Amino acid sequence: MVLKRWLVGPPLKTAQAAHQRLSKRLALAVFASDPLSSVAYATEEILLVLIPASLAFAHFSIPISVVIVLLLAMLTRSYSQIIFEYPGGGGAYIVSKANLGEWPGLTAAASLMIDYVMTVAVSVAAGIAAITSAIPPLFPYRTVLGVCAIVLVLLVNLRGVRESGKVFAVPTYMFIGSMLLMLAVGTFQLLFGQLTPVVFQSVATQTAVESVSVFLLLRAFSSGCTALTGVEVLSNGVTAFRPPAPKNAVITMVMMAFILGILFLGISTMAYHLGVLPKDDETVVSQVARAIFGEGVLYYLLQGSTMLILVLAANSAFAGFPRLASMLARDGYMPHQMEHLGDRLVFSNGIIILGVFSCLLIVVFDGDTHALIPLYAVGVFLSFTLAQVGMVRRWLSERGPHWRKKIFINGVGAVATGIATAIIASTKFMHGAWIVIILIPILIMLFRGIHMHYKEVADETALDRRGSRPPKPRRSLVIIPFSEMNLAVVRALDFARSRPGEIRGVLVDVDPRTTAGLEMQWAQWGCGVNLVVLPSPYRSIVSSLLEYVEEILDKEPDTWVTVVIPEILPAHWWQNLLHNQRALLLKASLLFKDRVILTDVPFHLTR
Amino acid sequence: MVLKRWLVGPPLKTAQAAHQRLSKRLALAVFASDPLSSVAYATEEILLVLIPASLAFAHFSIPISVVIVLLLAMLTRSYSQIIFEYPGGGGAYIVSKANLGEWPGLTAAASLMIDYVMTVAVSVAAGIAAITSAIPPLFPYRTVLGVCAIVLVLLVNLRGVRESGKVFAVPTYMFIGSMLLMLAVGTFQLLFGQLTPVVFQSVATQTAVESVSVFLLLRAFSSGCTALTGVEVLSNGVTAFRPPAPKNAVITMVMMAFILGILFLGISTMAYHLGVLPKDDETVVSQVARAIFGEGVLYYLLQGSTMLILVLAANSAFAGFPRLASMLARDGYMPHQMEHLGDRLVFSNGIIILGVFSCLLIVVFDGDTHALIPLYAVGVFLSFTLAQVGMVRRWLSERGPHWRKKIFINGVGAVATGIATAIIASTKFMHGAWIVIILIPILIMLFRGIHMHYKEVADETALDRRGSRPPKPRRSLVIIPFSEMNLAVVRALDFARSRPGEIRGVLVDVDPRTTAGLEMQWAQWGCGVNLVVLPSPYRSIVSSLLEYVEEILDKEPDTWVTVVIPEILPAHWWQNLLHNQRALLLKASLLFKDRVILTDVPFHLTR
Repeated sequence: MVLKRWLVGPPLKTAQAAHQRLSKRLALAVFASDPLSSVAYATEEILLVLIPASLAFAHFSIPISVVIVLLLAMLTRSYSQIIFEYPGGGGAYIVSKANLGEWPGLTAAASLMIDYVMTVAVSVAAGIAAITSAIPPLFPYRTVLGVCAIVLVLLVNLRGVRESGKVFAVPTYMFIGSMLLMLAVGTFQLLFGQLTPVVFQSVATQTAVESVSVFLLLRAFSSGCTALTGVEVLSNGVTAFRPPAPKNAVITMVMMAFILGILFLGISTMAYHLGVLPKDDETVVSQVARAIFGEGVLYYLLQGSTMLILVLAANSAFAGFPRLASMLARDGYMPHQMEHLGDRLVFSNGIIILGVFSCLLIVVFDGDTHALIPLYAVGVFLSFTLAQVGMVRRWLSERGPHWRKKIFINGVGAVATGIATAIIASTKFMHGAWIVIILIPILIMLFRGIHMHYKEVADETALDRRGSRPPKPRRSLVIIPFSEMNLAVVRALDFARSRPGEIRGVLVDVDPRTTAGLEMQWAQWGCGVNLVVLPSPYRSIVSSLLEYVEEILDKEPDTWVTVVIPEILPAHWWQNLLHNQRALLLKASLLFKDRVILTDVPFHLTR
Repeated sequence: MVLKRWLVGPPLKTAQAAHQRLSKRLALAVFASDPLSSVAYATEEILLVLIPASLAFAHFSIPISVVIVLLLAMLTRSYSQIIFEYPGGGGAYIVSKANLGEWPGLTAAASLMIDYVMTVAVSVAAGIAAITSAIPPLFPYRTVLGVCAIVLVLLVNLRGVRESGKVFAVPTYMFIGSMLLMLAVGTFQLLFGQLTPVVFQSVATQTAVESVSVFLLLRAFSSGCTALTGVEVLSNGVTAFRPPAPKNAVITMVMMAFILGILFLGISTMAYHLGVLPKDDETVVSQVARAIFGEGVLYYLLQGSTMLILVLAANSAFAGFPRLASMLARDGYMPHQMEHLGDRLVFSNGIIILGVFSCLLIVVFDGDTHALIPLYAVGVFLSFTLAQVGMVRRWLSERGPHWRKKIFINGVGAVATGIATAIIASTKFMHGAWIVIILIPILIMLFRGIHMHYKEVADETALDRRGSRPPKPRRSLVIIPFSEMNLAVVRALDFARSRPGEIRGVLVDVDPRTTAGLEMQWAQWGCGVNLVVLPSPYRSIVSSLLEYVEEILDKEPDTWVTVVIPEILPAHWWQNLLHNQRALLLKASLLFKDRVILTDVPFHLTR
């Protein structure tokens, strides 16, 4: 408990929740880190598809990046309508469930959940790649470093979202600043011819004799779509904004989209003009920065802030995932305990689950960004599509003011993201997207299973509407089994005697001499309570007691049997090995008997 | 439970215990398997010390074997006095504790315990070696085979000792028979010159130019002493004999010693005359048998029965170890649950512990007999010595009839085994005996620690001799926390109302709307029981309840607070993940409060 308090801080009152909300400046830092950070790997992923086919295809990265930025613009416009319509947050899950029904809603929820876990894993892997690019000796330790980074973010998040905002503001703005500076310096150098390409067998000199396949371009586009992951995080987190929350959220989203577009296009252009090729042990961004800044302070600043924003991008998932889990829990699709705010006003259970699964991914995929990427975009785009389709359906049935315009905007978004989803699922299927396509129905089945179980339990425990009580036992009999006469037994006896009613001490006769001694002690200490001595032909104390209890239950169908067990509670946990083994066995065998109630009366040892 | 019954059979009554006792014929099979089986490896262990030094030293194996057989005769004579004096069994532990005091007693107990575990591990390893000698392709699987063999013996023993006797009679007598047959045939062939040595660079032709060191001979002697392990098993198991138990036990022991002496000397002689050298993948006994019998049915019969008697030798340890553990538990040196007979009249806990530790040894030492041997004899001979010294002390203080003669017999035994212990400990120290020499004090500390704990607990819970009760609370208050109104809560309420006294329903106000609804439902279903609504500034239901309980405890020092928790018990274990998380948390935080008694009222779901 003390450790927990030191790690996560003192508990906060519900009334403090409003103060925990974010200004636009802080919100940009918290929520934009996810989408912005993807510029660190999106260009590289495009090149990784194009270059192995032919060096001459590198120039296709520019038009592909432009298409992706157009898609970003459409998405931003589409999502701003969602934010205004759903200020309560929830994004794709809420929108599809409300407008399309349970199954599409759960599909969106499953996609989003996978998406959040992938965001943490991919961001942390890419962040560690940024560091190992700058400091190559760290390369072999990337998996361990990744896990440590996740644990760090997890702890920060368990402390609560406001403090997270503070922690993340500096690196996010540092990243944006140093990136813009790099692009500005790079453009200046390009214009005045001071920049020498990294690769000398210049891409420009090769003639494009090979013809490019459509499939290859679509695959490159799919890889580049990872730049758009995280755009929806804002729509899930509207409630974290200061009022007027929807307006502030939309402004923040537009700002974010604008910065994202500039950085992504800029890096793609620079990488092309510098003739940068993807390498195993150095990221494309690192190569570009090294060419522009040289190996100076600015280079390390950029790499450092890239690492920070990536590791912290994981944070947006830590803000979104528990909120989604809590919503699912409230609707009965996840265990109830996910629903509640922890004592630091955060959804602690969800945070911990997210941390565990993303660590697992990092370990399984050995901290390799490129191996993780194919699993990433499918879920994201599926949830985009479902949300937009849901909105179209909504405007259609509502037909409020400007409904045609609204349908057009979300319709364009739905078609564009739908096509992108199909492209990503088909071109990335063999590279890992199949895992996600299998996982989504499994998660949906899990949600459904949990839902059905809770519904059945509610049915089974429901009170009769007419107010009639089920037939119930009325009498009560307390029995105290013991095999030794000591203060623990006397204490149990005292407890039993604190309410009027029948009490019996029960002793199993294993050894006649011991039994005689105990009978004498009971006469002295038993306060006149009746003593029953049970024969034990099989030497098993537990089975003799069990038989006795079953006999009472048979004979007296109207009686509760309360078994009061005197239990010695040692001062140190390991001492439990030396005590209460029989009590444990007795409790295990009585647990499933109807009308039997088990009560431990602990006797606390002090030494 | 059904599985358990099928594996170990139906429970037996205490009165059936007498019928579970063994005739001499069966007892020889059960107890002699341990000492007799050691002839399978003892000769080989002697040769393994002598041969690597020089082939010419092989002939020393004969005099060393003779010395060991003399030691056997002394031990048998010594132990027969112990059996008559201590018909209750217990051997070294009982004898040294009664005559020398607690520390020597615990030393003997620790040595015996290690000895039992080693017996299982060494016997099984050697048994598997007998099989892999006959069927070489099995050699790589020896560790797995060893573990399987131990599990088999463990199950047989959990069924009870009488059936064990039956299972073991056939292989033991088959082993004795085929060994004697082999020695007879071998002697005949030797006398009539039909036997060709296995090794052609005959040992006899080499001149003994190297001088042998005393240390080498002592090391060879130490290795050979493994032939005597198990002789004491009989003295621990006197109670398993049919009356007159001591007489029958002594007769059985003398028979066993006689057979052991013949077999051991016979194999040593044969091995020498055949010029057999120890090999990695074939045992010495297998080489001797192959030379005498050829590769026929008799050879496989001998190897098979050797394997069986070795694996079954482990059984004597399974009979002895739990008995010793039970005696230690009765004296408070082991956890109390070790004391009791299981429902098949065997000490199930001890049997399982022995199985686990010996499997561990097999796995750690990779099923290699030679690696295990140096750990074996130290403990055995230490307990021999302590028992003999204890007997000398006993005769000295008693001075009964023939006390001088009795002192002489046990005195000779004590001196001989004492010297042997010193030799073994010093010559084998570096090869593994140090592990045992470290383990013995650790075990003693463990015994003492457990003893002290039980003593402290007994002091702390002891009843006052003058019969005055400690001051005790007299009032009783039942509280029923709930957060939902359903049949489980109604059931808890019914239970609480089955005894007169104050009851309060307790509700934590997390959400005002829900609270209002629950208050209305309570009014309808609460049977007029008072309802307390607690504020919850920190949204933590558990901490609000905790505060409330603490307040009552403070205000009313004379009151027991019974917390009745309505708990939903699902039909399937995994459904527990979806329920009662909060109840668990509540119980954990209330467990260590004095005067708070926790009572679960389970509501059993059927679907």
